[in-house]
Amino acid sequence: MVSPAGRLSIVGLGPGALPQITPEVCAALQQATDVIGYVPYVERARALLQAQAVADVDAIRFHASDNRVEIDRSRHALALAAQGHRVVVVSSGDPGVFAMASAVLEAVDHAAPAEAALWHTLDIQVLPGITAMLAAAARAGAPLGHDFCCINLSDNLKPWSVIAKRVQLAAEADFAMAFYNPRSLSRPEGFNRLLALLRTHCEPERLLVFARAVSTPEERLTVCALQDVQPEMADMRTVVLVGNSTTRRVGPWIYTPRSYGRDVVAPGTAA
Amino acid sequence: MVSPAGRLSIVGLGPGALPQITPEVCAALQQATDVIGYVPYVERARALLQAQAVADVDAIRFHASDNRVEIDRSRHALALAAQGHRVVVVSSGDPGVFAMASAVLEAVDHAAPAEAALWHTLDIQVLPGITAMLAAAARAGAPLGHDFCCINLSDNLKPWSVIAKRVQLAAEADFAMAFYNPRSLSRPEGFNRLLALLRTHCEPERLLVFARAVSTPEERLTVCALQDVQPEMADMRTVVLVGNSTTRRVGPWIYTPRSYGRDVVAPGTAA
Repeated sequence: MVSPAGRLSIVGLGPGALPQITPEVCAALQQATDVIGYVPYVERARALLQAQAVADVDAIRFHASDNRVEIDRSRHALALAAQGHRVVVVSSGDPGVFAMASAVLEAVDHAAPAEAALWHTLDIQVLPGITAMLAAAARAGAPLGHDFCCINLSDNLKPWSVIAKRVQLAAEADFAMAFYNPRSLSRPEGFNRLLALLRTHCEPERLLVFARAVSTPEERLTVCALQDVQPEMADMRTVVLVGNSTTRRVGPWIYTPRSYGRDVVAPGTAA
Repeated sequence: MVSPAGRLSIVGLGPGALPQITPEVCAALQQATDVIGYVPYVERARALLQAQAVADVDAIRFHASDNRVEIDRSRHALALAAQGHRVVVVSSGDPGVFAMASAVLEAVDHAAPAEAALWHTLDIQVLPGITAMLAAAARAGAPLGHDFCCINLSDNLKPWSVIAKRVQLAAEADFAMAFYNPRSLSRPEGFNRLLALLRTHCEPERLLVFARAVSTPEERLTVCALQDVQPEMADMRTVVLVGNSTTRRVGPWIYTPRSYGRDVVAPGTAA
């Protein structure tokens, strides 16, 4: 029997630090009967609820699963919500950027007919979060302050040829670029290929940011010209930002000017 | 005389609703002596502080200015911070996406020598926020769930030829696209040109989202195929999202599948 109180919220926990989680997401978690997600994100949600001294945190069921099981996890969440549970699916960063919002909607889209009748009428909401590239950009200054693109470097879900074409066209468009999942232990060669592409299409002085585990105790930020990049600067906890051709250093910061293809602001004057 | 307590925080207030402002940004505002920004964003910061019943909100100086004076505002903020004030510069959305973080760092970069000596050593921090495209995407489902790009359609700061080239290359890359500042009253023709470009490079069934004033009482969300778009669907308070060639509808939602160029998930099965 489906309760009308059943609800599925797909929420973003931000890059890591609890003070970067929105009050809207906190409220959804406080009302949850079930929290579902990849192991470290479920633990982050539990830490948030414990830090807020939520009275009945022990009454919440936490369902932690491995990564690469996003569709199984989505179907589980949908089934629980259809039974009347208040389910929160947790993603790191923003749920709409290479995360669980697409996975849940894919599961709805590909539901068997009996499931579809229930799932299409569910109360589903997506609650945004601070995505890793914007947390990383903030730490570095403003490297994404002009037009940019965002590419998932994992080739689990698309062929490398698609990635290569997109990087080439993004460089031709002179977008700043943000790369998620740049380098896994099992497939380190993708990032080497990316560097080769960037070295073909961008000047050696192009500025990059390697932002690892931003906002956590393991945070490490490296700003580096393309000619000085070493592949080991990236791992799966790193977001890599590539400036456009106008990106500049100022003091400890890097930024991409707002103007492009016109005169820059003269020193000491207002624009 | 410069006080070591002087600090400049450039913060993101999210798209509009107070529960989408992070606790980190709230804390910076509560510690501010001065809040600086475009008129409606300064008012949003004041509303947040009043909602939180901050004891000394009347002691905070609020400096509201018009838009298009970003460099003047940045120089004002830097000068106050150099005098020892705790200054918060407020942006809507995320400060690093077409907002004040680049403007402040431009002002530092172009400082006169006497200013530069002070400004280069200031304690400057950028605090991220929920940017409009991700708030809009969340309301629509997950249209940015695969690789995407983000383009400012205002041609105040770059020539139209740059915008046109980027849109063409983004379509060729089959990026989903997010457009900020799509259509002002004074220059409505830019959005007409964008539609002409999209109609040249994308199929008529391509799905778009017009998300106006997301998370505010004036929110209006329209999902529409390219062939049915009317220019009046966009204004300066609208973010326009364009799906990629695989973006689909499911129930009231639209989403972009995570996989590209490979077999999709079979109905009712786990991937």
